[in-house]
Amino acid sequence: MYDKQTVRELIRLYLVTDRPLALGRDLEWVVSEAVKGGVTLVQLREKDLSTKAFVELARRLKATLEPYGVPLLINDRVDVALASGADGVHIGQSDMEYADARRLLGPDKLIGLSVESIDDAVRANSLDLDYIAASPVYLTSTKTDTAAALGLEGLGRIASISRHPVVGIGGMNLTTAADVVAAGADGIAVVSGIMSADDPCKASARLIDVMRG
Amino acid sequence: MYDKQTVRELIRLYLVTDRPLALGRDLEWVVSEAVKGGVTLVQLREKDLSTKAFVELARRLKATLEPYGVPLLINDRVDVALASGADGVHIGQSDMEYADARRLLGPDKLIGLSVESIDDAVRANSLDLDYIAASPVYLTSTKTDTAAALGLEGLGRIASISRHPVVGIGGMNLTTAADVVAAGADGIAVVSGIMSADDPCKASARLIDVMRG
Repeated sequence: MYDKQTVRELIRLYLVTDRPLALGRDLEWVVSEAVKGGVTLVQLREKDLSTKAFVELARRLKATLEPYGVPLLINDRVDVALASGADGVHIGQSDMEYADARRLLGPDKLIGLSVESIDDAVRANSLDLDYIAASPVYLTSTKTDTAAALGLEGLGRIASISRHPVVGIGGMNLTTAADVVAAGADGIAVVSGIMSADDPCKASARLIDVMRG
Repeated sequence: MYDKQTVRELIRLYLVTDRPLALGRDLEWVVSEAVKGGVTLVQLREKDLSTKAFVELARRLKATLEPYGVPLLINDRVDVALASGADGVHIGQSDMEYADARRLLGPDKLIGLSVESIDDAVRANSLDLDYIAASPVYLTSTKTDTAAALGLEGLGRIASISRHPVVGIGGMNLTTAADVVAAGADGIAVVSGIMSADDPCKASARLIDVMRG
């Protein structure tokens, strides 16, 4: 359903949620402010919620995003995506195999995959993915189960060989965003830089600005 | 697909897996021994595996059970059930809502629900479930997130008002099995009594024996 150019635009400023990083503020408020500021895609990432609470939150977030036309992806959980009517999933190398996820979700949903190496990116070229996330570009404290940092050079090599749109994740902020796009990424995936920002709307708008160069 | 009488027979001796309780032995070995001893239904319960490893294990277990004609249910995870070709799911009060699970799995899969009170059992009567699990009949060290123990009296009241087949869970062993069936349960769901048994085959056969009375 999504053509490559549409996906390249969708992953321009990609928000990955993290409730603890919202610093006690309502997750839906942070997300809607971020979207007003220019966020183009939202991934709901939850590791500790019960399935029931996860589905309920996904439904509320989907309703929040609907008026803005911003799609919602679910991290890992295909069941939560299906039950909530989300627009797709983001899967990592330890999550469901792409072929299973695609079979369960159908051809119209968006599926992205994290790649942590050139080898992962080569394998991803054989899959009918919507995008890949090069992870992590830099090391961060947000996610501690990641592989070694790719750096701008690793990201650039992945972007040059990938037939899929590429979003950079890990250490994406006002300082790094322009370099990451210059290195070949179509966009950046941000966690703490938006979730913990005093003003998630302004923080998002600034990130969009620095990527324009 | 499953008529009530078939389900009553399937939940006669219901094994719920727990890898740590297998004491280092291969889960598939324990399960296949248990099935040789008379286990009639298996629920794969995993809380710490990655989605990828969970699906792979479910597929292997499904292949192990296939020759015995014993169905495999997955605890909580509808996505894992769908990807692995399992026969259904068991959901708790904090898992996916029954209506969502049924919609995603379709009418032919088996869906069971844990009930922890008479009120839960009354609500379950309005759902097109295959069975309910009265949980916990007795308190155990296997599962520490449970409600207060129902006791034989609570179990009996649930069995008397439920329109669904009822399996008792929590503290099911050679001492309690006969009383639980006498109180109105169609069968027992066992965790440590089989998973940790020196001889899971013999342990299962004995449980079947004591339920015959």
